[in-house]
Amino acid sequence: MTGTSLSPDRPGSVPTVVHVRCTGRSYPVLIGHDILDGLAALLKEHAPAARYALIADENVANLYASDVTQALQASGLLVTRHTFSAGEPSKNRDEWARLSDELTDAGVGRDGVVIALGGGVTGDLAGFVAATFMRGIGVVQVPTSLVAMVDASVGGKTGVDTPAGKNLVGAFHPPQFVAIDPGVARTLPRRQRAEGLVEAVKHGAIVDRDYLDQIEGLLPEALDGDAEAIRTVVTGSVMIKARIVSEDENEAGLRQVLNFGHTIGHGLEAASDFELSHGVAVGLGMILEARLGERLGVTKSGTESRLTNVLRRLGVPLELPDRLDKDRILRFISRDKKARDGVPRYVLLEQIGATFHSIDWAQQVSESDVRAVLF
Amino acid sequence: MTGTSLSPDRPGSVPTVVHVRCTGRSYPVLIGHDILDGLAALLKEHAPAARYALIADENVANLYASDVTQALQASGLLVTRHTFSAGEPSKNRDEWARLSDELTDAGVGRDGVVIALGGGVTGDLAGFVAATFMRGIGVVQVPTSLVAMVDASVGGKTGVDTPAGKNLVGAFHPPQFVAIDPGVARTLPRRQRAEGLVEAVKHGAIVDRDYLDQIEGLLPEALDGDAEAIRTVVTGSVMIKARIVSEDENEAGLRQVLNFGHTIGHGLEAASDFELSHGVAVGLGMILEARLGERLGVTKSGTESRLTNVLRRLGVPLELPDRLDKDRILRFISRDKKARDGVPRYVLLEQIGATFHSIDWAQQVSESDVRAVLF
Repeated sequence: MTGTSLSPDRPGSVPTVVHVRCTGRSYPVLIGHDILDGLAALLKEHAPAARYALIADENVANLYASDVTQALQASGLLVTRHTFSAGEPSKNRDEWARLSDELTDAGVGRDGVVIALGGGVTGDLAGFVAATFMRGIGVVQVPTSLVAMVDASVGGKTGVDTPAGKNLVGAFHPPQFVAIDPGVARTLPRRQRAEGLVEAVKHGAIVDRDYLDQIEGLLPEALDGDAEAIRTVVTGSVMIKARIVSEDENEAGLRQVLNFGHTIGHGLEAASDFELSHGVAVGLGMILEARLGERLGVTKSGTESRLTNVLRRLGVPLELPDRLDKDRILRFISRDKKARDGVPRYVLLEQIGATFHSIDWAQQVSESDVRAVLF
Repeated sequence: MTGTSLSPDRPGSVPTVVHVRCTGRSYPVLIGHDILDGLAALLKEHAPAARYALIADENVANLYASDVTQALQASGLLVTRHTFSAGEPSKNRDEWARLSDELTDAGVGRDGVVIALGGGVTGDLAGFVAATFMRGIGVVQVPTSLVAMVDASVGGKTGVDTPAGKNLVGAFHPPQFVAIDPGVARTLPRRQRAEGLVEAVKHGAIVDRDYLDQIEGLLPEALDGDAEAIRTVVTGSVMIKARIVSEDENEAGLRQVLNFGHTIGHGLEAASDFELSHGVAVGLGMILEARLGERLGVTKSGTESRLTNVLRRLGVPLELPDRLDKDRILRFISRDKKARDGVPRYVLLEQIGATFHSIDWAQQVSESDVRAVLF
């Protein structure tokens, strides 16, 4: 498996390690129960620093940040805490600027490291703070949401939203390492676990039919928060994601397949003013982009219904909410980052487990075809 | 010369080409009279794009942007123009955000390229827009100030200032290419040419005594704007800078030598609320850091006076202005990006043409020694 390797899954607290290759180096993704208990040792080994700046939203800070901070300080590390209001609306340039200034005031220098403790919003926002602080300092990703565990924390994408759309400014900034405790997912609301599992379904849909078959049977337990089921899903998804981003860090080629469901999905998210969560929007986006592919004759017939059946087990919406203004969705889609020459592009499946490729991994599709599946 | 090569300097309009190595690729710095006449062809060859966003301050836009834009459009390229108020105060996060949004509105996508036409402020600001726009698009540096030609346009440093200090947020984002017309320097005020020549003096001081001897004789003509003298200085400085940044792109080691004069220099600039120009501040910074090195016994005695004699020919200030609050200077210095464990660091010379090295290229110095040279 190019760029990745997997240590045997031994009993006890020995974590599974998946290596991700990026420009000039590689970094480990460590997955293990209670791995946060050993965070200080991991920081000393993989991300030594004069000072650590722990960034978390207020919810996560209340749950975990005190324990984590105290444990790190007890191990002799200098740590300051920096928080922001939970939720996607905080992923903006003002919060990025405020957090950057907090780091300056706290005396963090070029020899500092950011610890991003939280879900996807935290990973993106804190990652962008690290990417740009004094032209870039290290970041450690400690995902606490299932979406972030299976997807967002691996691969180095960071950024914030602008009024015109999601992630319109940002940077590729690979972490020093990623530490995932699958047990943390047990404490999440069921709905948030469902959103993470949507991304795992995506991983199977784009490159690995066997993985989709494997996790389909595990979805009920994973949805209930069973730690072993979560660990299996997280490990499988991280391995797929690691293989893809190791091959194409900057999304010039293969990495685009990870955007399946995301062209329409981002449009739905933005058009709902982020009332639709990312996971729900991507689930709907996958169904609609499968329908689009079938309509265009590039996706094997029956793919949409297979995806719908899997996603039904997760209890996420399977139909476009009537309240969404479809012209507004199209306007947001037209500003998508994947657009070329101003024409938005879509990742289309060939069938479950294989992405369609023709010149590129993302295809330009006429707006009339997109309208036909949306309206 | 590691990472660089130099084409023979042939007569006519054939440019000199210096290659700079950066992660995974290299880029050319093209130096030639009237090189901007051929910019469209250079863009097509070295930075093909669906759209170009030309960023310039209002002064430079008035002087050059119409001609450049029209020439590019006449060659069939899609170009939009984006301007900001001239001067260091524009190098801030608000202007960065506004320009980014202008690019979005203009339909620039991931397949777009930024053209940074102007001095150091433009290169830093437009470069940071490019570094972060949709997680990074290409940038072409077209320096019009002598400081930017000899120094700032090469090496990929981009960023903006924050209330706490200069360049406190930014990114390393190497350009697709750099195009330098030395003739443009003729149109600058003499004072601005002097500031550029200060950086050229720095290049000689840190690594190349022969180069310092060579340009010392040329300083009067270069100060007058003689195009051949300017071309000689620009080419020599670009070769030195290219060699250094090719060896150490991210300033982990050797590249730090380029910060000679800059620890105190940045402190002076900030403490004067940017009344002191960068060039003037660095000139003073070099004199004071040479004095500091001599005081500490690491810099050969006589180095400060040699530097003072060279800088005297440029007509830049050789003494610290009385109006500057020295405690305020020290406060700004203490936040310098080169600090480690919160202690600022200084690049010290061994002698003219050689930087002192001990464990690292930058040294921690006690505040009392810094006070002794400042007060």
